[in-house]
Amino acid sequence: MNEQPVPRVHIAPEGHPWAPAMADAARRAGADVDAAGDASVVMWLTNTFEPELTDALHEGVVWVQLRTAGVESWLDQAAADRGRQWTSARGIYAEAVAEHALASILAGLKLLPTYARATSWDADAKGKGQLLRDATVAVIGAGGIGQELIRYLQPFGSRIIAVTRTGRAIEGAHESLAADRVAEVFPRADVVVLSAPSTPGTSSLVGASELEAMREQALLVNIARGSLIDTEALVACLQRGGIGGAMLDVTDPEPLPDDHPLWREPRALITPHAANPGPSQMPRLAALFEDNLRRFTAGEPLRGLLDFDAGY
Amino acid sequence: MNEQPVPRVHIAPEGHPWAPAMADAARRAGADVDAAGDASVVMWLTNTFEPELTDALHEGVVWVQLRTAGVESWLDQAAADRGRQWTSARGIYAEAVAEHALASILAGLKLLPTYARATSWDADAKGKGQLLRDATVAVIGAGGIGQELIRYLQPFGSRIIAVTRTGRAIEGAHESLAADRVAEVFPRADVVVLSAPSTPGTSSLVGASELEAMREQALLVNIARGSLIDTEALVACLQRGGIGGAMLDVTDPEPLPDDHPLWREPRALITPHAANPGPSQMPRLAALFEDNLRRFTAGEPLRGLLDFDAGY
Repeated sequence: MNEQPVPRVHIAPEGHPWAPAMADAARRAGADVDAAGDASVVMWLTNTFEPELTDALHEGVVWVQLRTAGVESWLDQAAADRGRQWTSARGIYAEAVAEHALASILAGLKLLPTYARATSWDADAKGKGQLLRDATVAVIGAGGIGQELIRYLQPFGSRIIAVTRTGRAIEGAHESLAADRVAEVFPRADVVVLSAPSTPGTSSLVGASELEAMREQALLVNIARGSLIDTEALVACLQRGGIGGAMLDVTDPEPLPDDHPLWREPRALITPHAANPGPSQMPRLAALFEDNLRRFTAGEPLRGLLDFDAGY
Repeated sequence: MNEQPVPRVHIAPEGHPWAPAMADAARRAGADVDAAGDASVVMWLTNTFEPELTDALHEGVVWVQLRTAGVESWLDQAAADRGRQWTSARGIYAEAVAEHALASILAGLKLLPTYARATSWDADAKGKGQLLRDATVAVIGAGGIGQELIRYLQPFGSRIIAVTRTGRAIEGAHESLAADRVAEVFPRADVVVLSAPSTPGTSSLVGASELEAMREQALLVNIARGSLIDTEALVACLQRGGIGGAMLDVTDPEPLPDDHPLWREPRALITPHAANPGPSQMPRLAALFEDNLRRFTAGEPLRGLLDFDAGY
């Protein structure tokens, strides 16, 4: 571990409402925070790439901290830029997004979207809901969010199948499959949760044949990225009465246009990329930044380092 | 433990679709199942009191097994009848109803009823949801259902306050209050779950003053009985913008009539007494009946014995 000099931090874009909290965090970690032209570290606070970031990335910048967990929109920039370290905020949103995932699963199993739209008491509805404790849940992508969801599922006793790139064992999962065996889960699962990053390898991971293979009453839950599902295939599947329902916090396209057929599909629930309740996460981003600055100063590995080869 | 003679079982009403499964269960426990006039045990399979039950309750019947968990509609009959034992099916529905309770809590915190009714992407919605992990959850009535719910809440790290008649310690709850201190929870809880039996003591447990005391964003969840809430006070509270929302699986009146204002209340979700998915519970009722018959034969205490003084 080589001690580094005091980091000189540039927090951008200027005037961002979270900037003061990030500056406080940086000061707690012993950093200089008023750097710009002579910064060694850039903290970038918007969800998108903007020209001001290019301006900030002068030669002296050796590390860029991003505020998002999904980083697909940064990868081209970052990959052209391997001379520096890039870190995402993955992990800090895991609990919030996993809560949303479980909310979606339970709402789907209990038919809550249908009841929310009802204006009359349907006594025959009793007995149409499904029990989570009897369900097999496939968690495709068992990173921070997927692992947190698996932790929430433990008390129910559901059967849990985790799918990861390598098929490594995941705590709390009864089975762990490598990504090349993902096709096996569609006929077996009562609930399929997509919590994998958006990469070329996960694009349209769920298409017509996967939907065809799913069980009649199965739920599809997407809290990752819209690109993981072939939207046209999903619409066709729901319209012909396939699968039990789709709970989508992310869509393709996103935002979903007003005239999109998914808005009219009774077995779909669209939440507008709301799983991660933004403002409440500011303190956690500040804590991550502070910890990463301490690691940077101590010459230790940073949390959330982008893996250019894996694409996340 | 005095060994009893082989029980003679009468399963009624005749022709009920669950009767064959209950007869099989009784035979497995070594009972005679074709008894009627000479029965010592009656298994009653509907949710309501019917004249056929009175006919079945001749002098020789020493024990009546009911299929419901809530027994308020039987208490007058049973109380006039203390010469026999009455048992409810409490416990066998606990997991299903607790799942529904957690589904309701999470759906309310994440604003899913609002999203279910939306037909357009609301980008401003992000950040309006609440986190269960930051919430204080009051569970009023910590019997089988309440305790199961508390078990499901453990991984989130929510603060849990259990309210029971006596204030006895409840596993997994951070605090246990006796019923005479229930007023303390309304200003403190982000989520108030009603899972107490319907008794004279719990009638209108939540009325105008309790609703007034609740937090601005707090959720009220009722998976017990409609009588626990003063419906008129709840409607008034929601209409004036009080509390965050009400998730009601039971209502007063029930069924809720089509013209009832709760159907038009955007922050209410009505599910039609659907928490307990009936048909899937048949095997569990059969298993309970078999176990109770074995206990009866062995002279051991029965599960689910009605407590006439407590009223459940």
